[in-house]
Amino acid sequence: MKSQIVTFLIKCPDQKGLVAKITSFFYKKGFNILSCQQYVNSVEDMYFMRIRLNAEGTNISKEQLEESFLELAKPLQFKWSVNYGDEKKNVAIMVSHTSHNLYDLLERSNEGRLNCNVKMVISNHNKLRHIAEMFNVPYYHLPVTKETKSEQEEQVKQLLDANEIDLVVMARYMQILSSDFINYYKDRIINIHHSFLPAFQGANPYKRAYERGVKLIGATAHYATEDLDEGPIIEQDVKPVTHESTTQTLKRIGADIEKLVLARAVKCHLNNQIIVSGNRAIVFPESGE
Amino acid sequence: MKSQIVTFLIKCPDQKGLVAKITSFFYKKGFNILSCQQYVNSVEDMYFMRIRLNAEGTNISKEQLEESFLELAKPLQFKWSVNYGDEKKNVAIMVSHTSHNLYDLLERSNEGRLNCNVKMVISNHNKLRHIAEMFNVPYYHLPVTKETKSEQEEQVKQLLDANEIDLVVMARYMQILSSDFINYYKDRIINIHHSFLPAFQGANPYKRAYERGVKLIGATAHYATEDLDEGPIIEQDVKPVTHESTTQTLKRIGADIEKLVLARAVKCHLNNQIIVSGNRAIVFPESGE
Amino acid sequence: MKSQIVTFLIKCPDQKGLVAKITSFFYKKGFNILSCQQYVNSVEDMYFMRIRLNAEGTNISKEQLEESFLELAKPLQFKWSVNYGDEKKNVAIMVSHTSHNLYDLLERSNEGRLNCNVKMVISNHNKLRHIAEMFNVPYYHLPVTKETKSEQEEQVKQLLDANEIDLVVMARYMQILSSDFINYYKDRIINIHHSFLPAFQGANPYKRAYERGVKLIGATAHYATEDLDEGPIIEQDVKPVTHESTTQTLKRIGADIEKLVLARAVKCHLNNQIIVSGNRAIVFPESGE
Amino acid sequence: MKSQIVTFLIKCPDQKGLVAKITSFFYKKGFNILSCQQYVNSVEDMYFMRIRLNAEGTNISKEQLEESFLELAKPLQFKWSVNYGDEKKNVAIMVSHTSHNLYDLLERSNEGRLNCNVKMVISNHNKLRHIAEMFNVPYYHLPVTKETKSEQEEQVKQLLDANEIDLVVMARYMQILSSDFINYYKDRIINIHHSFLPAFQGANPYKRAYERGVKLIGATAHYATEDLDEGPIIEQDVKPVTHESTTQTLKRIGADIEKLVLARAVKCHLNNQIIVSGNRAIVFPESGE
Repeated sequence: MKSQIVTFLIKCPDQKGLVAKITSFFYKKGFNILSCQQYVNSVEDMYFMRIRLNAEGTNISKEQLEESFLELAKPLQFKWSVNYGDEKKNVAIMVSHTSHNLYDLLERSNEGRLNCNVKMVISNHNKLRHIAEMFNVPYYHLPVTKETKSEQEEQVKQLLDANEIDLVVMARYMQILSSDFINYYKDRIINIHHSFLPAFQGANPYKRAYERGVKLIGATAHYATEDLDEGPIIEQDVKPVTHESTTQTLKRIGADIEKLVLARAVKCHLNNQIIVSGNRAIVFPESGE
Repeated sequence: MKSQIVTFLIKCPDQKGLVAKITSFFYKKGFNILSCQQYVNSVEDMYFMRIRLNAEGTNISKEQLEESFLELAKPLQFKWSVNYGDEKKNVAIMVSHTSHNLYDLLERSNEGRLNCNVKMVISNHNKLRHIAEMFNVPYYHLPVTKETKSEQEEQVKQLLDANEIDLVVMARYMQILSSDFINYYKDRIINIHHSFLPAFQGANPYKRAYERGVKLIGATAHYATEDLDEGPIIEQDVKPVTHESTTQTLKRIGADIEKLVLARAVKCHLNNQIIVSGNRAIVFPESGE
Repeated sequence: MKSQIVTFLIKCPDQKGLVAKITSFFYKKGFNILSCQQYVNSVEDMYFMRIRLNAEGTNISKEQLEESFLELAKPLQFKWSVNYGDEKKNVAIMVSHTSHNLYDLLERSNEGRLNCNVKMVISNHNKLRHIAEMFNVPYYHLPVTKETKSEQEEQVKQLLDANEIDLVVMARYMQILSSDFINYYKDRIINIHHSFLPAFQGANPYKRAYERGVKLIGATAHYATEDLDEGPIIEQDVKPVTHESTTQTLKRIGADIEKLVLARAVKCHLNNQIIVSGNRAIVFPESGE
Repeated sequence: MKSQIVTFLIKCPDQKGLVAKITSFFYKKGFNILSCQQYVNSVEDMYFMRIRLNAEGTNISKEQLEESFLELAKPLQFKWSVNYGDEKKNVAIMVSHTSHNLYDLLERSNEGRLNCNVKMVISNHNKLRHIAEMFNVPYYHLPVTKETKSEQEEQVKQLLDANEIDLVVMARYMQILSSDFINYYKDRIINIHHSFLPAFQGANPYKRAYERGVKLIGATAHYATEDLDEGPIIEQDVKPVTHESTTQTLKRIGADIEKLVLARAVKCHLNNQIIVSGNRAIVFPESGE
């Protein structure tokens, strides 16, 4: 392999000697270990590792590496994935009416602050086409009604698959996706919800926040699962508000939180920082990167 | 009146000329207006004011002031209260097992950072007696079972009334109070709940926060109402946490949030900064004080 | 006047009766007072007010209003300004190499989240032209060297004046402006500095933050004054960082703080929320708007 | 060794294979690695590790372990320390007039939230004696004048050494310690400064914060070094403030920040989470503890 950064994500039952065994394995293959992050869940006796390697100076092919690694992985019951950092991931953004997250993601991608190719924007409305066009990203308008829902999802699926999309970002796409769709892209759909979940699950969170008189509002980025707004949480943030805030003010303040929260979650995913375990997302911080 | 600070809290239907009429009223009586804060709820067409006056140099008694004010208040449909700042409010703290809020409130009161007399600590357990004793505050141990609940509440009530308690602070008192009790002290019981409400209402919020995998935890101080954990929110705050946090870690991190949130809410109440309106608490910030 | 929102900003020596006199003045002219915010600086015995009026139903012209107001203002020694909300303010953005603030301001302006006309982008480099063009905003490339500095500033000045610019936003413009230039646009130039001032005034704040090993980094928006990075602070924010952060990481984390801080400061200025007093900026929060 | 948690802190020049070599070393000795945290400073090519081991089931004495470890450490040029978690560290708190940090530390220690023995409080004043007495901690009043400074420091030193103090916490001790004193307890004195350093180094930070008109205030906990307020920063935090805040208000808001910041820094030190490198403190987060 060339001088490239290889990232392994590993999940397995906890047991003595894991870090020694894994790091020795890569050391003996000639890799320089750039960072090695672990997490032990002692409630469930599970072990999680994210290890980043510099392949410079190794004389091993991807196939050889993975074959060897399998021998280590099997007896220790690893579930694992590897990313060689040599190809940008392909991203599709889904939106409805709200523009702020779309602008933000396109700007970051355009200026090299998100390491991905935004291949398309898909919307059930035509309203945000001008934004995609500003950034020269194809915009697909696929309207949806109750009757055409499964048909429309099929169209979306075809677009995603034809373009080899690795990650779907629901940047305020206000439609509930079918279980079939969601399970097909398991752990590959990130949704932004405009509340600090589990508060205000479902519709109209800002209106309900106003009515409840909360003193802070927030946003949550999570992987989409069958259960609406209940998927593994990747990132959350809040801002203080006061009794002065109307539903409109909350929306405006919230927009800035939504932007940051979604962008950070997408960055963590693209950067291979996340392992999903049950309904929890292990999000390793960046380490020397 | 002497040189003292008088605070009026006013709530009424919104209408033209309110601020001019109210401030002129006090100006003509010879008061210096130290601060005058307003809030208009345009959804409900309601007007709220907190006005602080320096009585220095006025030649008017409390009775005369209030009699005059009534003439202004009636046609404009004011609901109002006045505080003359000449007597510290009496506070009772109710606790069960958890010590951090109790320490914090007693320390602040002891060092003059909370403007009140903490007259007593009431608990259904004997566990925290040593803390009350350190601060020379009487500690009443009133155990409670399902069978003795109404009887015990009656005892609490007698203690509170005999000591002319103005504010009851439930500093992690882990019993559900009866509606009768709560309504008797309407808008005078502040409770701390160890989550960012409305998330994790009810029991075991830290355990549920762990299970849900949230990336922030919080605390909420609110007036107690019949509906558990649904009363008007006075103050909330959160801190970020990670997948590393266990239920135990969350409890520890949460303790520091609970302390600050409860202390701030109690301070706002003691300082006459709050008007309750329906299920929302209008909390005016300090202004030049 | 039509149904429009009129905002007065007033500064004067503190004295009894100010709020009564001012609010009565507007009430008698038939205005509905939407909000009335005050601040008393008791160190300097100064009084500040921001009052927002709805002109609906008044029968008075701007000239009549101001003439009458002068009669009130003179004896009470007001320094005051009035904004009738009927014209958007004209804004010029100055930049050098860094794109994030420019994108952010143009996006907000484009989507109606900043109430202004961005009339032009001025830069000493050509690098960010593509961004201005995406948003159809004229981009003026005015290079500068030590020798041409005063000449270039003259060109900038001509552009600003020809376009009746109300506010200059230095969105990471990495040139020190002359005192003449700054004083000519006193309290009308907002600069973003990439540190929590007064820490790391001057050049390379992120590098110095790394070297100092701080555990949080920040950004500060302030009015430009003759003394570099010492003008009245409008808005500041910070984010936590760790020992892991390199200068590069700090820059990336800082970019998101800079964007929010500058956008909030510009919004406050455009919305007539700020009164400058000496080296301090009184920034009234939004109130029912 | 018994079932105890052993923590090694290691610092050395960066080189290939470190994590594999170190973790294999402990694995072969029979230790279970509870957590293993690393940091590579690529500017200075330095490697840092914090590794926590469970000694349960090992058949090795402390002496044997350290002897073996030396063989690993020498060729790799480790600077290292080890803590066996079997003895609480001894802490002395130094104060002058301000009570909030003292209360907070004593309360945490008393309730088992800080893993240490607070052996004494030392003060140049007698003012806070009542607090130490509430918590049954000896209070030494050692007044100091310019003339008696070196003599008083000698007394302090004798007290510290006689009581085998591991950590000195300057909880608002308003005297400048001599270089001799500080160097004698290098990396073992934690000071709280009441500003977000490097802003407002030196005296009267709240007054200067008011005058500068900052929109946030903060606190910094750092190791004391010869250069006043310039030692390695362990922990910082801030809170937003407004133009309304006077120097007095800032002090009050700041007190709560100071308490949390100092308590967290002390906890990190006691928990062996910190490696000092030059003027920077590497502060590893808790990991599964």
